Amino acid sequence: MLDLANKNTHLYMRVYHYYKNLILNGKLKPGSKMPSLRRCAAELQISRTSVEAAYLLLAADGYIISRAQSGYYITDIAQKQAILPPKAKKETPVIRYDFASSGVDKDSFHFDIWRRYIKSALRQDERLLSYGEPQGEQELREVLCTYIHERRNVLCSPDDIVIGAGIQSLLHILCPLLSSRKTVSFPNPSFLQGISIFEDHGFTIHYRDKNSDVIYVSPAHMTKWGEIMPTSRRIELIHYAAQHGSIILEDDYENEFVYMQQPTPSLQSLAGGQGVVYLGSFSRLLLPSIRLSFMVLPPDLATRYHQEASRYNQTASKMEQIALCQFIRDGHLASQTRRLRRLYSNKLKELYQTVRAVFGENAKIRIGSAGISLALTLPCSLSGSSFQNLALQNGLRIGVLSEKKEELELILSCSSSPTSDFLPGCQLLHQIWQSVSQNQNSL
Amino acid sequence: MLDLANKNTHLYMRVYHYYKNLILNGKLKPGSKMPSLRRCAAELQISRTSVEAAYLLLAADGYIISRAQSGYYITDIAQKQAILPPKAKKETPVIRYDFASSGVDKDSFHFDIWRRYIKSALRQDERLLSYGEPQGEQELREVLCTYIHERRNVLCSPDDIVIGAGIQSLLHILCPLLSSRKTVSFPNPSFLQGISIFEDHGFTIHYRDKNSDVIYVSPAHMTKWGEIMPTSRRIELIHYAAQHGSIILEDDYENEFVYMQQPTPSLQSLAGGQGVVYLGSFSRLLLPSIRLSFMVLPPDLATRYHQEASRYNQTASKMEQIALCQFIRDGHLASQTRRLRRLYSNKLKELYQTVRAVFGENAKIRIGSAGISLALTLPCSLSGSSFQNLALQNGLRIGVLSEKKEELELILSCSSSPTSDFLPGCQLLHQIWQSVSQNQNSL
Repeated sequence: MLDLANKNTHLYMRVYHYYKNLILNGKLKPGSKMPSLRRCAAELQISRTSVEAAYLLLAADGYIISRAQSGYYITDIAQKQAILPPKAKKETPVIRYDFASSGVDKDSFHFDIWRRYIKSALRQDERLLSYGEPQGEQELREVLCTYIHERRNVLCSPDDIVIGAGIQSLLHILCPLLSSRKTVSFPNPSFLQGISIFEDHGFTIHYRDKNSDVIYVSPAHMTKWGEIMPTSRRIELIHYAAQHGSIILEDDYENEFVYMQQPTPSLQSLAGGQGVVYLGSFSRLLLPSIRLSFMVLPPDLATRYHQEASRYNQTASKMEQIALCQFIRDGHLASQTRRLRRLYSNKLKELYQTVRAVFGENAKIRIGSAGISLALTLPCSLSGSSFQNLALQNGLRIGVLSEKKEELELILSCSSSPTSDFLPGCQLLHQIWQSVSQNQNSL
Repeated sequence: MLDLANKNTHLYMRVYHYYKNLILNGKLKPGSKMPSLRRCAAELQISRTSVEAAYLLLAADGYIISRAQSGYYITDIAQKQAILPPKAKKETPVIRYDFASSGVDKDSFHFDIWRRYIKSALRQDERLLSYGEPQGEQELREVLCTYIHERRNVLCSPDDIVIGAGIQSLLHILCPLLSSRKTVSFPNPSFLQGISIFEDHGFTIHYRDKNSDVIYVSPAHMTKWGEIMPTSRRIELIHYAAQHGSIILEDDYENEFVYMQQPTPSLQSLAGGQGVVYLGSFSRLLLPSIRLSFMVLPPDLATRYHQEASRYNQTASKMEQIALCQFIRDGHLASQTRRLRRLYSNKLKELYQTVRAVFGENAKIRIGSAGISLALTLPCSLSGSSFQNLALQNGLRIGVLSEKKEELELILSCSSSPTSDFLPGCQLLHQIWQSVSQNQNSL
């Protein structure tokens, strides 16, 4: 019964519960029509507004459904266990060999050490009870300041550093600071995530065009196969940018994995800290699942940032910031970097030798002096995506760098697959490629 | 001596180290001039480019400094311990009573339980070794889907949910999806962080103007002192938005803290999931330091999002996502919410009674049926910021809501200060206010 006298609940809620129970008890059958708003209001002697509110709520919860020009009808909700739509499962082939993952080597990271630092951060109850500093934790910025000075000659103060959950979060803060600038150049279209943010902020995107207001470069990762920008070109770029009033965004991605030569100086240090924003990240050095990046702003942008800082919340986890700070202080980032350099340098060499052995002396392989990948060019008349899909269905994941007529350039990463996968993985790739070539030849 | 024959290091690096050592040894005195590029190149019989690269690097590291039209000079770096600028310490008064904190009550959160879930997440090595899903972890989206259906009648599928590190991160993804829309209305200018993102994306901001393409509302937090939007107005708003083709962004902030009345239904459920983006966050329920928010997209925006999803990285910590998922599954979020409701409801009542007792029966106090704050209006001829600063110097933090001629409206939050602070804190506030009034009267 509808108890209209109970004053502790809103009227429309009582009407709602009244009908809800009738529907769930099966007293109102699926498919039957609800009384019109007018009739219901008259019968219960309440306002039409209250009835309408109750009906809207019943409809929102799936008990009744509105049909245009006709009224409300009872649904079959009472017969259903849950009204959530069943989840569609996506079928994906099982990956046996993965040369396209952006993950890291599972032997590369000392989980037990990282766990210790997270646990210690978790004990700082008081700090975790408040919001973090919008710019990032002060002590982490101090530690980073020393760290990048030692390793990359980047001179700055903690006040010039902004921390965020990934490069995208930082670019969202940076773009509005670049106010009057309207064009940005990227070395190529592959860094989709960076390009997207500039597009969203109304920038015009150019490729390999120095004649832009903003020049985005990853000097330690000029190509996917690890070419790095030589010092002479870095100096040229700085001169050019200074002459034309362009600002350089230096994404120092993978600068840690320069094996074959002396590490080149950062653009930020070569430019004396003027006109360059330095961007760094820990996804590759620690865990991809840790969303922690930072940027170093040149003096003019730092001033502008501090005027605007209150507009932005911090995005990075405070717990992970506290943990990382102590982790770096205790020297673990430095030793982790040394371990990774050694590991990836050896793995990349081994992958190169394996590809060479399987595809023969004449195969065209490109390998740079840095990074974790090599490029392999194969004659092939399939499109890049068709070849990639064919490989995927055979349990092999590879990347495609470019496709020309009758030629594919593949990119193979050594980072997440174990070395024991190199030979069988490359043999499978060879087999797939040969089967395609034979089919093509027999046409 | 400069060993030009050592072929393992780049030439400019050898020149760099050669001079660096001379400077640090004190063999080259501070203030003395470096040889010109031309002379140095001639003496060492190397190219001017190599010398220039070395000089730039020396300058970047602070060993030498360039003077226009003159050349390079040795700095006094050798006499300094470190070349980092000394850190400026900011003097801040000691806060004894804090009624303006956005932190949470330190008894409100069971740290031991949360630690257990973080530790368990930390054991999932394999998952942490890869990047997270751009949209947020699938299993967390599934759990959220059930949770918000049960609590807020929000009907959706996990595919409609996007997770991010705070509301700002989500708005950065949402704004570009609202493409053709150009105006947004906010209830008032206080939600600076939300307004900022729309400004950055080129939107025109209106206040309390329903005649906008996008209508941002926090129905459970209409005013700082906890007024909530009644159901009748919610229904009106939905009708209005549907008629005018506006989209509603429903920030369901603090909907959990509606004490004095039946919780009102969400706009999303009242609208049957059409034309409303539902936004939720865990900062207030768990810890402000946990950056985890989510949005539920209506069908048309969900479709558009899935076309664009690859453009955006996930910003929230994967470890915290894994932990939160299991935390909700095991019912801890529900019990935490119950505990917080009880706690804040009692604390707010007690704060109200204390303010009433200290400021007397005639004091104008506004308190809503939700939230964690009350508003206190005092006759006062000081400006809001002057009064706030005066309080701060006396160890008391309060918020100022509005200022009129001879009147201030203060906002006092009960969330982070212990109840034992209520009486002395309010007495101090009363004392400060009286001293101001007396000074004014004696002028």
